[in-house]
Amino acid sequence: MRRKKIQEKPAALTDRTTIRVRFSEVDSMQVVWHGEYIKYFEDGRVSFGNRYNINYMDVHSQGYVIPIVDLTCQFKQSLRFDEEAIIETRYINTLAAKIIFEYTVYRASDMSVAATGTTMQVFVNETTNELELTNPEFYLEWKKKWNIG
Amino acid sequence: MRRKKIQEKPAALTDRTTIRVRFSEVDSMQVVWHGEYIKYFEDGRVSFGNRYNINYMDVHSQGYVIPIVDLTCQFKQSLRFDEEAIIETRYINTLAAKIIFEYTVYRASDMSVAATGTTMQVFVNETTNELELTNPEFYLEWKKKWNIG
Amino acid sequence: MRRKKIQEKPAALTDRTTIRVRFSEVDSMQVVWHGEYIKYFEDGRVSFGNRYNINYMDVHSQGYVIPIVDLTCQFKQSLRFDEEAIIETRYINTLAAKIIFEYTVYRASDMSVAATGTTMQVFVNETTNELELTNPEFYLEWKKKWNIG
Amino acid sequence: MRRKKIQEKPAALTDRTTIRVRFSEVDSMQVVWHGEYIKYFEDGRVSFGNRYNINYMDVHSQGYVIPIVDLTCQFKQSLRFDEEAIIETRYINTLAAKIIFEYTVYRASDMSVAATGTTMQVFVNETTNELELTNPEFYLEWKKKWNIG
Repeated sequence: MRRKKIQEKPAALTDRTTIRVRFSEVDSMQVVWHGEYIKYFEDGRVSFGNRYNINYMDVHSQGYVIPIVDLTCQFKQSLRFDEEAIIETRYINTLAAKIIFEYTVYRASDMSVAATGTTMQVFVNETTNELELTNPEFYLEWKKKWNIG
Repeated sequence: MRRKKIQEKPAALTDRTTIRVRFSEVDSMQVVWHGEYIKYFEDGRVSFGNRYNINYMDVHSQGYVIPIVDLTCQFKQSLRFDEEAIIETRYINTLAAKIIFEYTVYRASDMSVAATGTTMQVFVNETTNELELTNPEFYLEWKKKWNIG
Repeated sequence: MRRKKIQEKPAALTDRTTIRVRFSEVDSMQVVWHGEYIKYFEDGRVSFGNRYNINYMDVHSQGYVIPIVDLTCQFKQSLRFDEEAIIETRYINTLAAKIIFEYTVYRASDMSVAATGTTMQVFVNETTNELELTNPEFYLEWKKKWNIG
Repeated sequence: MRRKKIQEKPAALTDRTTIRVRFSEVDSMQVVWHGEYIKYFEDGRVSFGNRYNINYMDVHSQGYVIPIVDLTCQFKQSLRFDEEAIIETRYINTLAAKIIFEYTVYRASDMSVAATGTTMQVFVNETTNELELTNPEFYLEWKKKWNIG
């Protein structure tokens, strides 16, 4: 009897971290100013990087910077002063030499969605200042390690 | 002889305003932190509203708030400390009950593009706190006045 | 022999809360931009208010706002990206119609001092928009409750 | 008759620059959040540096950084969204190895005072990372050039 090859499903890399809305982040409409969500997404990205060992310094030590080249944000519901929110950061796998994340910001009290969004980052060689068109070796190894080759 | 009907071309509503990069807007990579562009877009929107008489207070006095529900930003090139940038804000006409703007942020010194983006706003009735599915009367009049009915 | 009355020492009202340095808070010198400490002080004040039941909404519900009229900050040592800091907020008792706090920001890893500071707030009547020259009743009761009358 | 020696009065080095309040700088009380004034002071300092040829890059090229070690701010009156303010930055001469500025933020419409403040900066050698206890040569020359030796 022929043994079915077990399809190894790629690990879904996800992180959740919690933030609390600052007074200075609330605008004159009594809700979080829309631009503050970009900071919340970054909080999510940093927390993801710490969890999965691919933070800003790791990338830098390999000779790369990873600037954001594309950003989207969809606002669903307002957050207010001193509310807690949970930032979910999901790694989206791609063959291209890009790092893509999806985000969902939940109001912590009822887990309703406050906002969603995406970011796309590219690899820029710090020495040549040029865009990398293929994935750097260290990044391929990181993907392999997390079973998302 | 047949008279050609004159096609009335809708006015292209556009504004340009200038900002200067603050030290506090620059990140540890020596370039403007990507989230700051959301402030620049807002500078553009405010300047547009002042020019075309449809600012935040005008809308508020009609009983509406116009929250941003969708935001995109594409980053092309870095801006640095104390550089001047020109924010171009273009009104995108739509029949839907939405306000859509496109933005281009130019480096002032050579008019190269630093970033582009879009925002979409909706009308929310301040009394009922409900989304308006059709354009409020005051907004239709504003459009007519600027020949973009 | 007459027993000396034990002098009841006023409770030292103090709170500690933890923050983590955001990437967007770090400047081109790779350290936290000095103005961000004002946010950290506010984080401390909010945490204090939540602990001792005298937050912004409690004050508002009594018909007052408590704007900051004086602020000082002394910078001792830099904080860096993703470092944790502990904000200690100490209530300074005064007979005047003022709320005074002292702050110490500690680097969490070694409890060395990154910054110190003070804020002074006054009571403004929300209806008359006038400065209160004497302590509002609700505030005197709050002080009594915490044994700092 | 003996002629009185004309006392050469040191030049009062002062700069004025204008800012416009951003929507994102206004808090839920409809006024500029108090921490934003630190940005306005920095706008003033940068404008001063550009006028008197002692900006951040000039100092850096001499091998120094000039971190702020002390900051005070006194809030007199609120500024609101889209208001213009004038930042006056005054150089305070001292023999010590420090750079001291005083600031006044005026509401542009009536020149009433919104806030005042001070900053003190020190010289840190970028190579040794040590505090300079005496004024660096380039700074003494700058002072002489502006007749404030």
